[in-house]
Amino acid sequence: MVYTVIMAGGSGTRFWPASRRALPKQFLPLGDGVTPLLTATIRRVAALSGPGEVIVVTRADLAEATRSAAPELPAANVLLEPVGRNTAPCVAWATETVLQRDPSAVLVVLAADAHIADESAFVAALRTAVKAAEGGAIVTLGIRPTRPETGYGYLHVGEAWPGGLAGVWTVNAFVEKPDEARAAAYVAGGQHLWNAGIFVFRADVMARAVAQHLPAVAEALRGADASTVQARYPGLPNVSIDYAVMEKVAAVAVVPVDCGWSDVGSWQAAWELGDRDASNNAVRGARAVVVDATENVVVAPAGKTVALIGVHGLVVVDTGDALLVIPRERAQDVKRAVDALAAAGRDDVL
Amino acid sequence: MVYTVIMAGGSGTRFWPASRRALPKQFLPLGDGVTPLLTATIRRVAALSGPGEVIVVTRADLAEATRSAAPELPAANVLLEPVGRNTAPCVAWATETVLQRDPSAVLVVLAADAHIADESAFVAALRTAVKAAEGGAIVTLGIRPTRPETGYGYLHVGEAWPGGLAGVWTVNAFVEKPDEARAAAYVAGGQHLWNAGIFVFRADVMARAVAQHLPAVAEALRGADASTVQARYPGLPNVSIDYAVMEKVAAVAVVPVDCGWSDVGSWQAAWELGDRDASNNAVRGARAVVVDATENVVVAPAGKTVALIGVHGLVVVDTGDALLVIPRERAQDVKRAVDALAAAGRDDVL
Repeated sequence: MVYTVIMAGGSGTRFWPASRRALPKQFLPLGDGVTPLLTATIRRVAALSGPGEVIVVTRADLAEATRSAAPELPAANVLLEPVGRNTAPCVAWATETVLQRDPSAVLVVLAADAHIADESAFVAALRTAVKAAEGGAIVTLGIRPTRPETGYGYLHVGEAWPGGLAGVWTVNAFVEKPDEARAAAYVAGGQHLWNAGIFVFRADVMARAVAQHLPAVAEALRGADASTVQARYPGLPNVSIDYAVMEKVAAVAVVPVDCGWSDVGSWQAAWELGDRDASNNAVRGARAVVVDATENVVVAPAGKTVALIGVHGLVVVDTGDALLVIPRERAQDVKRAVDALAAAGRDDVL
Repeated sequence: MVYTVIMAGGSGTRFWPASRRALPKQFLPLGDGVTPLLTATIRRVAALSGPGEVIVVTRADLAEATRSAAPELPAANVLLEPVGRNTAPCVAWATETVLQRDPSAVLVVLAADAHIADESAFVAALRTAVKAAEGGAIVTLGIRPTRPETGYGYLHVGEAWPGGLAGVWTVNAFVEKPDEARAAAYVAGGQHLWNAGIFVFRADVMARAVAQHLPAVAEALRGADASTVQARYPGLPNVSIDYAVMEKVAAVAVVPVDCGWSDVGSWQAAWELGDRDASNNAVRGARAVVVDATENVVVAPAGKTVALIGVHGLVVVDTGDALLVIPRERAQDVKRAVDALAAAGRDDVL
């Protein structure tokens, strides 16, 4: 069986005021404007993993939100972390859980909060990765870069992966986030792909890798069930699976893919992914009145009238209790408003 | 007695979305952020005219809003125009109404929707004007210009008004809205004042002037009561008191005044009149979070959190059902959104 493990514990603040502590980004319809990202992620992998084979790992306080976004999942398939411990303990726990059900299972691990424009290309790449994983490889998907992005790590692609599977290559190196010049060289060179944190492997292979590189984690989780994990989880190291395992494995395979992947990193993405009018305004929810206004993104409650006159490149997000106005190019700075609200004790809107 | 006649029939659209057809500008707290302009206007003249001597002329459909803003007024002091007919029929009707109560009354006539920063200077000027009016003059207040405004008419000041009353002068001419060069020359020259449409006169003097220059209006309104006016009003000419009477009277007196008068003409005025933070943002109602944002004006429901990041010189107005975002320097263009909404049949937000 192919199990898909969806990491859904993020607490993103960059989509405030739509995202809140109790309703982070993965529960918002930031892709198509209708479907929560987590729900869309589950649907996207349905051809590989049915509801019984989808595991969502999330924060304990997001249990109810997860049930709402993924009502078809068995309760035992929602793993609730008592505290966040980055991706290594998360992947190790999911691997142990799947291993107990199906010793020969293959796992697809990915985040809940990405958007994929070309889902069939994505699923095809996953199928290729699953085949390679069945042969024992730990495989990552490598996204062909469409711009010299400095916010992502890269994968340096090497030779064809041994075994003759078409479309599978060797990762020469995991590359840290580059500066602009290096990012531009990566895009031009064609030998670097974005590391989107999407991994495919056999459960037993990953269990061995964790035992080798994170023996304490393997020990703590061996034979664990949901209740014993609650006590042991806080003691686990707060490290990423990339750093703690992937970069230490002798050889990792990569399947390059060009599927319109977006990490939906800020409100800028809502503009990029949204339907846009003739003046390049992306409007969700609101009934917009636009006069001499271009390249704005508006998100507002259904039916609210929003009039934009003579403004350009703005993000305007209204949630009823809160309103954000920020230039699109500064969308990353939303967290400065969140920090200011936290400092002011405004938990009511966080 | 000094009666004050407040013209409150305006249907301004420049304060949308706060102003609506059923709640135009004069009912909004655009001066101090708390008191509706009409209410503030009544309080301002209280030293001259008590509630029994304040007459409000407004549209019939604004009767209820007027009662709310001016509950202390006797019902007979609210004159309801069945249709708008500009200021000449309005002043003539108010004059006739006052004349029936007190043949020796002096009337102060002004609009409901201005803001006055220095109320004592304003009231002192009115007292001077009342004295001149008691002697038979038709008097206007002339606002000392503080900028070369091209949106107002001007009064060209002549010699001292005969009779030796300090601070009263003769109007040489009513001057049309000037172009920028002329407006600048007016400010520099010191002989021109803004015509704010504030007039003071004895009821019998105005009645004679109306009989002379608008005989049909005088005839229609002579002896009229509120009910007979309803039938006759639609037949009256749609002309201003300035054009139809003031400019034709042989001599009009003027009392110059420097009182921080504002006609509260657009959302720009909310910024000018509002308390501003260290970054020159004027915020009303909202709980604002401001990061690198300057010279904005925000109006939102009490308690709504509004975060402005990296934006400058914007007007942001949220009324719950509608939201406006426009640069302050384009504040006059709000009516383009109103026109677009009207064309789209969006009477629900107009």
